[in-house]
Amino acid sequence: MAKQEKLVKAITSMDEDFAKWYTDVCIKAELIDYASVKGCMIIRPYGYAIWENIQHIMDGMFKELGHENVYMPMFIPESLLQKEKDHVEGFAPEVAWVTHGGAEELEERLCVRPTSETLFCDHFKNIVHSYRDLPKLYNQWCSVVRWEKTTRPFLRSREFLWQEGHTLHATAEEARQETEQMLNVYARFAQEALAMPVVKGQKTDKEKFAGAEATYTIEALMHDGKALQSGTSHYFGDGFSRAFEVQYTDKDNQLVHPHQTSWGTTTRLIGAVIMTHGDDNGLVLPPAIAPIQVVIVPIASHKEGVVEKATEICNTLKKVCRVKLDNSDQTPGWKFAEYEMKGVPLRLEIGPRDIENNQCVVVRRDNREKIFVNLDELEIRIPEILAEYHDALYNKALQRRETMTYDAKNLDEMKEIADNKPGFIRAMWCGDRECEDKLKEVAGVTSRCIPFEQEHIGDTCVCCGKKATKMLYWGKAY
Amino acid sequence: MAKQEKLVKAITSMDEDFAKWYTDVCIKAELIDYASVKGCMIIRPYGYAIWENIQHIMDGMFKELGHENVYMPMFIPESLLQKEKDHVEGFAPEVAWVTHGGAEELEERLCVRPTSETLFCDHFKNIVHSYRDLPKLYNQWCSVVRWEKTTRPFLRSREFLWQEGHTLHATAEEARQETEQMLNVYARFAQEALAMPVVKGQKTDKEKFAGAEATYTIEALMHDGKALQSGTSHYFGDGFSRAFEVQYTDKDNQLVHPHQTSWGTTTRLIGAVIMTHGDDNGLVLPPAIAPIQVVIVPIASHKEGVVEKATEICNTLKKVCRVKLDNSDQTPGWKFAEYEMKGVPLRLEIGPRDIENNQCVVVRRDNREKIFVNLDELEIRIPEILAEYHDALYNKALQRRETMTYDAKNLDEMKEIADNKPGFIRAMWCGDRECEDKLKEVAGVTSRCIPFEQEHIGDTCVCCGKKATKMLYWGKAY
Repeated sequence: MAKQEKLVKAITSMDEDFAKWYTDVCIKAELIDYASVKGCMIIRPYGYAIWENIQHIMDGMFKELGHENVYMPMFIPESLLQKEKDHVEGFAPEVAWVTHGGAEELEERLCVRPTSETLFCDHFKNIVHSYRDLPKLYNQWCSVVRWEKTTRPFLRSREFLWQEGHTLHATAEEARQETEQMLNVYARFAQEALAMPVVKGQKTDKEKFAGAEATYTIEALMHDGKALQSGTSHYFGDGFSRAFEVQYTDKDNQLVHPHQTSWGTTTRLIGAVIMTHGDDNGLVLPPAIAPIQVVIVPIASHKEGVVEKATEICNTLKKVCRVKLDNSDQTPGWKFAEYEMKGVPLRLEIGPRDIENNQCVVVRRDNREKIFVNLDELEIRIPEILAEYHDALYNKALQRRETMTYDAKNLDEMKEIADNKPGFIRAMWCGDRECEDKLKEVAGVTSRCIPFEQEHIGDTCVCCGKKATKMLYWGKAY
Repeated sequence: MAKQEKLVKAITSMDEDFAKWYTDVCIKAELIDYASVKGCMIIRPYGYAIWENIQHIMDGMFKELGHENVYMPMFIPESLLQKEKDHVEGFAPEVAWVTHGGAEELEERLCVRPTSETLFCDHFKNIVHSYRDLPKLYNQWCSVVRWEKTTRPFLRSREFLWQEGHTLHATAEEARQETEQMLNVYARFAQEALAMPVVKGQKTDKEKFAGAEATYTIEALMHDGKALQSGTSHYFGDGFSRAFEVQYTDKDNQLVHPHQTSWGTTTRLIGAVIMTHGDDNGLVLPPAIAPIQVVIVPIASHKEGVVEKATEICNTLKKVCRVKLDNSDQTPGWKFAEYEMKGVPLRLEIGPRDIENNQCVVVRRDNREKIFVNLDELEIRIPEILAEYHDALYNKALQRRETMTYDAKNLDEMKEIADNKPGFIRAMWCGDRECEDKLKEVAGVTSRCIPFEQEHIGDTCVCCGKKATKMLYWGKAY
């Protein structure tokens, strides 16, 4: 076990330095490598395989609801970006500008898309003319660029991968429903694929998307008590379609502007998984997105029949899960540490004695619990254990979030909690931007969301003491 | 049928203006839309669904051979691009340069990747140290940018989608095998998924990739007799690893440079499909990549039981193919034209009389042949008919290519054929660059490839009359 110990110690412990622990996991689990381009990252095969699983599940959910994938250009002419005033103000300060093609200076600068509302609107203008052309339910998988000053793998990088949904509807009502529906899809995905509990709610005006009438969000709580915005959904009303002159002829033969939404999630979700489930031994992956769900480690593999049995088990399990047999000449101890670092949910050990007893040992990554499984029952038991494992991860994360959620009644309480207790803070709010600004200034917290599930925990604003209208989640955020 | 006639006439005929016919198909089949960004295109849902099918099949072939997907940054610092001399000379004239991030000028310009050899090398340097780290078999799905002067949808656009494989090997032998293996994968994909025959061969030094020791290609012949390079595979030797200082310790504990390959195919393949199989009624899609393989059109759908039966057939066929029931209130004639334009392989008509006879009519897109199928046999017959359809498309394309392939013995014959007979020209070549240049100048043809399957069709070079070493395919190309 010497080697395993060594590897385990190779990452900083969470309590010692959470930020260092996080980047250690990203590197040692071979999720990323740093690139020559400042603020950008290389997503390595193991990290990209997680993203492919996320894409596969999410894309299925989108298509199930009638969405279609498209691909828009990665460049936006400056004049197009400027058509919607709030939008350009929000994004222009952080975009990368292309000024030259080959040796020639361009007549008009192009920005590398930070998001594609403007391109979609420009396209909608061409293809939408009649109510028969609506709704348009589009999605795009691509990379976008935002020229951030400080960056961290997955959480904030100058280029990141994402999906951006863009839909156009005949009525405001229908567009609002779409916005809510997609937020629910994200919340369900977080729970069912990432085993990650989230709070669903609306962003305040201060925190909403540039150009949106309303922004909805799912907020998750990380291990260190910081909040992570994990997916957003925006309702635009007809603001963009007015700015871009998108119109259609309705059933009464009137020319009207359609209503629009957009919604997105990014590779940040991988960061969320790391910081929700990970521990001092490395990554802990929920089964739905784990590139390897079960790793088979033969014990005393030089003994007759061990490798053959391990191979047989591998072939059996291929039918029900993503399984890998590690038959390399590394020691079992090295392999244990390696696949713990990579967060593989289950390790299946099989040695000569196990074969005699027609059983194997299945070890859970999260708590190292050992489960003896009869070899004839593997095909049924492994999917069951994976399902239990998913539930265990979810419940543990939920419990932690509940433990780390505090209520504050006034500014003193807010400051006291913000200074000493990492986590979500629930508090009543009057609705004024000034109070939001002040809470940021004096307590260092931002409003995370106005949760859909409201609870009346007081009558007065936590900041100014005036009459409160809503209960909000507050916190320090990534 | 009036409406169908009208739609059919909505596209230019091939013989009248092939280039116009091509763009008409791209637009009317709703594959693309033009974007505000000059030289870029919007890939619409129907076009993107074709690309998704291409990706799905090809990605499976890559993974089957042990390749893993990764994601590299889209930006390359100028200094990194300059490390390999031939490579930078080849690409620098046609890249887009990012010079500003937000309001600030960058210290070093970044180019938007035209291809990612340099980024992969930079990464390999970090992660490859020992022979145990080899081979690295990587692939990336992304978009790349080349600042072309003249552009056409799918065939040549400033941004396009592609996959780029990048592999690193311990020996030259192994890298060469990889280069050949991947060219064979492309050829098999062209034949089995696109029903498109290709000539496999090597590029001359003049036509090879910037920085490569050898470039291999698959060349297809379009309807108008022009050649289309449809996939390439490059062997780099250790040139890039020397330039980027990638080294590993071999089994004898010596520090050596590994050998490298790259290989790519692009959305150009969609253009290839359009120009290989399309006709004056629009697109003709091979079943493997068709978003809809069978469209069900109910006839006299107001009659009792028709829609119910059509729905029942649709549910049955879902198990064996991609099927769509068009139950809209458009006329059958309109639907016939619409799905012909979109290249759907089979149309299934079902009306009251068919139901009485427990049969339906299946109409092939390519030749409008009508096949009567017993409703109880649909699940077996439709996959059979789709397979026959694929073979028919392939054989027709192969036959056309053979008919349009000519042999030239000398410069006069070459000029005569090049001027009057669109197609491939096979001719012997001495191996000199000057002859290649001269053939371009006087006959307007470029060398397409030195085919692996050589045939001795003469002793002397078609251009200079000196001793010939190889038989080449020549032609006018996209």
